[in-house]
Amino acid sequence: MIGGIDLGGTQVRLAIAGLDGTIAGTRRVATSSLGGPEGFVKWAVAGFEELAPGERLRLIGIGVPGPCDPVSGHLINPPNLAGWRPNLPLAPMLAAALGVPVKLENDANVAGLGEYMRGAGRGARSLIYVTWSTGIGAGLILDGRLYSGAHGTAGEVGHMILDPEGPPCACGMRGCTEAYASGSSIARQTGRSAAEVFAAAAGGDLAMLAVVERAAAKLGLALLNLTNLIDPEVIVVGGGITNSWTLVAKALRDPIRTSPFVTPARRPKVLRAALGNQVGLVGAVEWARANL
Amino acid sequence: MIGGIDLGGTQVRLAIAGLDGTIAGTRRVATSSLGGPEGFVKWAVAGFEELAPGERLRLIGIGVPGPCDPVSGHLINPPNLAGWRPNLPLAPMLAAALGVPVKLENDANVAGLGEYMRGAGRGARSLIYVTWSTGIGAGLILDGRLYSGAHGTAGEVGHMILDPEGPPCACGMRGCTEAYASGSSIARQTGRSAAEVFAAAAGGDLAMLAVVERAAAKLGLALLNLTNLIDPEVIVVGGGITNSWTLVAKALRDPIRTSPFVTPARRPKVLRAALGNQVGLVGAVEWARANL
Repeated sequence: MIGGIDLGGTQVRLAIAGLDGTIAGTRRVATSSLGGPEGFVKWAVAGFEELAPGERLRLIGIGVPGPCDPVSGHLINPPNLAGWRPNLPLAPMLAAALGVPVKLENDANVAGLGEYMRGAGRGARSLIYVTWSTGIGAGLILDGRLYSGAHGTAGEVGHMILDPEGPPCACGMRGCTEAYASGSSIARQTGRSAAEVFAAAAGGDLAMLAVVERAAAKLGLALLNLTNLIDPEVIVVGGGITNSWTLVAKALRDPIRTSPFVTPARRPKVLRAALGNQVGLVGAVEWARANL
Repeated sequence: MIGGIDLGGTQVRLAIAGLDGTIAGTRRVATSSLGGPEGFVKWAVAGFEELAPGERLRLIGIGVPGPCDPVSGHLINPPNLAGWRPNLPLAPMLAAALGVPVKLENDANVAGLGEYMRGAGRGARSLIYVTWSTGIGAGLILDGRLYSGAHGTAGEVGHMILDPEGPPCACGMRGCTEAYASGSSIARQTGRSAAEVFAAAAGGDLAMLAVVERAAAKLGLALLNLTNLIDPEVIVVGGGITNSWTLVAKALRDPIRTSPFVTPARRPKVLRAALGNQVGLVGAVEWARANL
């Protein structure tokens, strides 16, 4: 058997699975209840032991938020894990405690692998998974393999600049995709949480609908740029904001659909992610499988 | 032995090489003198026969301008080959005439492979080759392999939109990289050829220097976006405009160097191409080798 862990800012999920990726059991906990990395490791050891008593897992895949080094297994500086220290050798810590090799990857990359193998991207050779939530990131599956870049930081579509004189972004530049379209930016523009904004837009609030459509149109422009750079078969969009898919689908797709440069023969499908809040866990198991 | 062909809008070059890529002989001709695809095929057959009489080559790689289908070996609609008909099955035509398998690829991709194997990108695992000339394109070498996209059209950095309200581009959109920085655009902005503009800038014409620096800064912004999306180790810039490297190097590099989001540890080197006008031919031979 193999294992998968989805380490998120809000929840941590853990699964055991067969070598074919079929999940046999899962556990879940609030991240904040673990107190930090040592508590997390203790919880993972106990969870795997409960789900597969006495069994020695072959490999564990883990998806983590924020910048990381997949080679050394370090978490660099996770912005969404309050109180976790920077430059944390998380994969070596887990491997030592579990006695099992652990492969770590960025959460957007792992989720992309999940949608590619078991979600909306099945059958595609090259796929971009875009996560649209508090922040915006992407995982690239190119010619059937996860591509994470020379330093593990490929797919930073949230910081693609769409207008160098646009609004300031938290990263220090101006006019990044996130500066227009991230959940944080929508909250900043409106003084309400992104969830409230989408609920109001769905309920007929035209001002909030305009905010949502503007954000989706900017992300759609980023998807057009991705199409011209990477030429994927499919773009899968996931993350919390896609709960409101009917509000955003047209604006997301229009820039690609209407660009005269993207001929119909090479137009990628833009699809909603299929795995919902399981995407990180399914992806972590697939990441383990990819490393067997 | 293997063969390589660099089919350009101005010149066609042809080489035979050993299986290790060492070029043993070359031929060159003006494209316009061939009259069209049939004349080109006849010239190639005669050229290979002259360079390696009686020898049966193992494989021939060919780099072609404009959109193409590497799977079927068709040239789709080459904008720079005046009088060549669209949807031309060029690789099958060559293969039939030569009795040798022929693998066709986009010229920017092939050039990228050349710089990766034998030029400024040696030793890098992931490299972006940007060709800056009349138009702007790119070849992507990711994790040691040429990535050409799901439909053979990856790397269209010339049509990355840098400002949706920017100047109109020939592709029908606005604010593409080419609309600011291509040789055509520089010529349109100034009423002079790009070569004249660069010569004047080098000679101290401050107005022309400002045009050159503005174009380089926009391409530099595109390189920053590429860095965040693809996370390469090296970006190699080639094409005619890099004859004026000292005029443009700083402006090309500054956006990456000054972005707070691109930490020094993941900053790619931005280098001038090393193979000059041989890049297409060296790349075509390497493309043949990659397909052996």
